[in-house]
Amino acid sequence: MSEAASSSPLVTAAILAIGDELLSGRTKDKNIGHLAELLTLSGIDLKEVRIVADEEDAIVEALNALRTRYDYVFTSGGIGPTHDDITADAVSKAFGVPCIHDPDAMQLLGDMYKRREMEFTDARQRMARMPQGARHIPNPVSTAPGFIIGNVHVMAGVPQVFQAMVDNVLPTLRSGAKMLSRAVPCPYGEGDIGTLLGAVQKAHPNTSIGSYPKYDGQRFSTEIVVRARDQQALDAAAEAVVEMIAGIDRAKTPANPTADA
Amino acid sequence: MSEAASSSPLVTAAILAIGDELLSGRTKDKNIGHLAELLTLSGIDLKEVRIVADEEDAIVEALNALRTRYDYVFTSGGIGPTHDDITADAVSKAFGVPCIHDPDAMQLLGDMYKRREMEFTDARQRMARMPQGARHIPNPVSTAPGFIIGNVHVMAGVPQVFQAMVDNVLPTLRSGAKMLSRAVPCPYGEGDIGTLLGAVQKAHPNTSIGSYPKYDGQRFSTEIVVRARDQQALDAAAEAVVEMIAGIDRAKTPANPTADA
Repeated sequence: MSEAASSSPLVTAAILAIGDELLSGRTKDKNIGHLAELLTLSGIDLKEVRIVADEEDAIVEALNALRTRYDYVFTSGGIGPTHDDITADAVSKAFGVPCIHDPDAMQLLGDMYKRREMEFTDARQRMARMPQGARHIPNPVSTAPGFIIGNVHVMAGVPQVFQAMVDNVLPTLRSGAKMLSRAVPCPYGEGDIGTLLGAVQKAHPNTSIGSYPKYDGQRFSTEIVVRARDQQALDAAAEAVVEMIAGIDRAKTPANPTADA
Repeated sequence: MSEAASSSPLVTAAILAIGDELLSGRTKDKNIGHLAELLTLSGIDLKEVRIVADEEDAIVEALNALRTRYDYVFTSGGIGPTHDDITADAVSKAFGVPCIHDPDAMQLLGDMYKRREMEFTDARQRMARMPQGARHIPNPVSTAPGFIIGNVHVMAGVPQVFQAMVDNVLPTLRSGAKMLSRAVPCPYGEGDIGTLLGAVQKAHPNTSIGSYPKYDGQRFSTEIVVRARDQQALDAAAEAVVEMIAGIDRAKTPANPTADA
């Protein structure tokens, strides 16, 4: 990965998913994989993901660890109107600023509930709370905004809302040199290719070659993924992987009977 | 959560999922949710999850942070035969012990490949590597064992193999007082119930009441989940939630016309 990567502007990110329901297994997370894919497409390197409970100390600690280490942090979950939604408080604490009822968010939500002839209850007003000085992330699905403070983007946990917020956030991010990738399907298991693939990786140091075993219930095959920020380096390494597989094919095929004759 | 919990033996755990493919979004993780669910059923509190890349420093740091903080750590990924499988080395480094070709694992794998008339290549021998002194986690799917060192359980990333290893590990774990839970479906959004539900939580401090918004594309509803280690506390809180919802129903229903007349 070395040279091509170091000459390109690397942009790094982390995701912090917040919620007891993820840790109990009751809810299967959909946000991490979704955002991971979009960050890769944007040339942003997702370096770490954490999932923590709805506990202030846990959120504050994880957030401070991640926001000082990566260019961007994205959180999901805990910004609703109920007592277990404590993300706005925790983020405020992490940044050492007061958590306030943001005037613009109060206006936005107040107007919305007025139009819908619904009471703007204390609980609903909780959704306007955010760290003082935070900027909104628009929420086209259900109005209550996410928010940005420093390099931290705080978004909802409900996948439809999370995804809509992500769509609003992505165009605002600095993106790095895009990571290019090519997948090469391989009918052989990792044990068959391990030594040869290690040699290919060594011969192509400006690429990162990953090997992902698949198991269909009976036998293993592999998906080999070559990644690089440089197109030429990518092509050369992918070509070498294809040639490696062809070599194994030839070695496994019995000698041509005509030639034998 | 306080009293009931503090009088019960709490057992805590963390999951560390390892793999570039999870962070690129190419592979959507299935192991975290699976194990999370089984840990909850075993009365083990999953407190934190991290996902890191196939990078030794990242693995070592995360592992050392988690293993010193929680009773159990479970890892997935990076124990195959290819050059990007570095989990055994990283775990050894974290524990400060040599990473060796474990003699029992060499025997097990050597015998298996002999039976299958396949060469026991250097790459395949990599799957016998583990920290000196580690114990095996049997792998009924594809033989190559996972391993246990200290409180860390190192398992494969391929879901079928991971799940088979988990099945072998779970019965060996100390389990805590089981967390009981009851889900109460609620047709109202969180904004409707937030204030009332906060009051229910306050009145039932030995329980943990979570509220999980759902969005069907048009409107929000909520699943309310009451959790407690004590059956009586659980029942009382769940009853209070049901009563709360009935109260909202009554308030929303127009006055009975017969009574009006």
